[in-house]
Amino acid sequence: MSQLKGACIIGQSGGPTSVINASAYGAIKTALESDSITRVLGALNGIKGVLDDNLIDMGKEDPEELALMKHTPSSALGSCRYKLKDPDVDDTDYKRILEIFKKYDVRYFFYNGGNDSMDTCNKISKFMLKNGYECRVMGIPKTIDNDLYGTDHCPGFGSAAKYIATTCMEVYRDARVYDTGMVTIIEAMGRNAGWLAASAALATYKGNGPDLIYLPELPFDMDKFLASVKEIYAKNGKCIAVVSEGIRDKDGVYISEYANKNMAKDNFGHAQLGGLASYLAARCKEATGAKVRGIELSLLQRCAAHVASKTDIEESFSAGKAAVENAVNGVTDKMVGFERTMENGQYKCNIKLFELSDVANTEKKVPLEWINETGDGLKQEYIDYALPLIQGQTDLKIEDGLPRFVNLKKVKA
Amino acid sequence: MSQLKGACIIGQSGGPTSVINASAYGAIKTALESDSITRVLGALNGIKGVLDDNLIDMGKEDPEELALMKHTPSSALGSCRYKLKDPDVDDTDYKRILEIFKKYDVRYFFYNGGNDSMDTCNKISKFMLKNGYECRVMGIPKTIDNDLYGTDHCPGFGSAAKYIATTCMEVYRDARVYDTGMVTIIEAMGRNAGWLAASAALATYKGNGPDLIYLPELPFDMDKFLASVKEIYAKNGKCIAVVSEGIRDKDGVYISEYANKNMAKDNFGHAQLGGLASYLAARCKEATGAKVRGIELSLLQRCAAHVASKTDIEESFSAGKAAVENAVNGVTDKMVGFERTMENGQYKCNIKLFELSDVANTEKKVPLEWINETGDGLKQEYIDYALPLIQGQTDLKIEDGLPRFVNLKKVKA
Repeated sequence: MSQLKGACIIGQSGGPTSVINASAYGAIKTALESDSITRVLGALNGIKGVLDDNLIDMGKEDPEELALMKHTPSSALGSCRYKLKDPDVDDTDYKRILEIFKKYDVRYFFYNGGNDSMDTCNKISKFMLKNGYECRVMGIPKTIDNDLYGTDHCPGFGSAAKYIATTCMEVYRDARVYDTGMVTIIEAMGRNAGWLAASAALATYKGNGPDLIYLPELPFDMDKFLASVKEIYAKNGKCIAVVSEGIRDKDGVYISEYANKNMAKDNFGHAQLGGLASYLAARCKEATGAKVRGIELSLLQRCAAHVASKTDIEESFSAGKAAVENAVNGVTDKMVGFERTMENGQYKCNIKLFELSDVANTEKKVPLEWINETGDGLKQEYIDYALPLIQGQTDLKIEDGLPRFVNLKKVKA
Repeated sequence: MSQLKGACIIGQSGGPTSVINASAYGAIKTALESDSITRVLGALNGIKGVLDDNLIDMGKEDPEELALMKHTPSSALGSCRYKLKDPDVDDTDYKRILEIFKKYDVRYFFYNGGNDSMDTCNKISKFMLKNGYECRVMGIPKTIDNDLYGTDHCPGFGSAAKYIATTCMEVYRDARVYDTGMVTIIEAMGRNAGWLAASAALATYKGNGPDLIYLPELPFDMDKFLASVKEIYAKNGKCIAVVSEGIRDKDGVYISEYANKNMAKDNFGHAQLGGLASYLAARCKEATGAKVRGIELSLLQRCAAHVASKTDIEESFSAGKAAVENAVNGVTDKMVGFERTMENGQYKCNIKLFELSDVANTEKKVPLEWINETGDGLKQEYIDYALPLIQGQTDLKIEDGLPRFVNLKKVKA
């Protein structure tokens, strides 16, 4: 393999996580230290930053400030949801990308995102190859949803899982404090894969968690759900249930659609937004007469850097680092992922490379055999899987009692 | 002052906080070490535990396990919302309390709660005095609302404020990540006093906070609010607003009532619960066309022990400790509160005692002169007030990556 010298571009895409910047920082730091990479450029708002020639020079950032990226949530370079067209149909964007790559002599492209981003990587790489432009393309995964194919788990999931489990343990304490009845419904993200809602099982494992957990992997039966809540409520005077936003009934209709279908209008005819958690809470109120509360974890579960998993932060950093190291060593068209080994009962996470074409547009769900017989909880297999991923506390810098997040200068390239 | 020997009862009441157990533990630990206190009893579910003779022996708990109370959220002894009747109208409950006090030779009563709890303390104390039963009664305050009269601030507020400011900083990063528009509404607790919503100003002070903050101290003008959101959104493409749950219009009607008035019904006629945040978000969607998100911090803001303020934990502990020390030294009918001194610009918090009768049923609001001219933000005076209260990180014990909260044996007395 010959050494390939040139600039690199790093971009971030899709919904952010608590640790996506740890990955970006792993890539940026490694690239800045590499002999092969002449200049490290950041694309603002992902691929749109490339298309708009909106690039910043990461080498102009103060190294100490830049290091704060490792513990700063959300995408420090900005994100986008822009989907590239099929190049066989319309290659305008690809031509423009090639033009920008040539302008800055870009020979390395690192893209930090979910399924769609791996698809973007794959398409760009193929187009460059077809046009005889040498450029190594690597995908760096992120997603709290943990639904990427191949990799044992995804950077970002561990921190979201730690947030959800911690929050469930705290809410468990709060929601049981009165001697009067209470039913609490907590809604976690996860449209098709239930990894996040499932992480509430870690709280139950620690003896302070929900009674019921529902994932989109199985059809949601409202009558069965209400019967279970009633039974638990009758026994304990309390019931806590966690649901994935993506739960669907046997006909495949999202339960949240029922929640939104006949949206409320206020006195002036203004529509209101409904939520799955409050909808289910209202149904439980009817069924039990109990005081109810619906809690939607919303954005909080994907940006709570203050309770991020150290394991997740370090692994995310190492994924970014490995992307650059591998590319410099001649690898291209791969996504950096993880492989788990257990040595004497000790969890160990190793870097493993996956074909971009395999990863793009494939979803990984919670194995059905990890869900309990009644379809409302997780088995020990899930605990064994998820527990190592939430270990360790963040080293987030605190200033004046509050997080000190990164402030980039963003000097135009 | 003569030494008074006898048992003590400690109870907790009202809505819990992240640090109410730190206060209870301060009282329990000090009582267990006191020569005057012969037995330390915990009342399960507050005053109801006394009425029901549902008491536990705190001396039977393992000291190491008991120490975990200091970092465990919610009320470890359980809470209640039971309000004692006026003893001139019906003294049944008081007679029963006296009977229980006599049964266990209770000479000290410590009650850990908000305004109502101070009222309970006051009434019990007067009844005992009238009936010639010597018993020293002390109130130990708690409330995330920070609305207790007299004391500079309330145990519990600093931790809730730290949670809200931290969360706002994180959401600020997340909600601005795309290059497309977004309006985010965050709802904090606080029915009549806006201390909690105001704490979001700490995030703004750190450069990562909401654009607009609305407190119940001033009438909420929907048109003005929407105009402000539109203006900020037009300029920045993003807008984040934080509101107190208790905001009211000029006629005194809660905005949340408009949200709930015409509650949605789903296809089956089931009522749905609405929320203020999602209601305002929907209004902003109409006004701006932007993508919107309503986030209700719900129970999370009062039980997030994992991000509690060390200052708050230590002060809460010292309040419980001071209650016992003062009572043993002959003080009765007082609430333990805080007085702030500034020495060479250094915040210092001293214990100060307040008359129970003064505290009961009085509310302390955010001074109007701390609110900015446009009524949608806080001045530096608020920052100077609140910032010292959120300093320091918790020493919460972590086990398996998750909080290790207390598990009491609860041995019946």
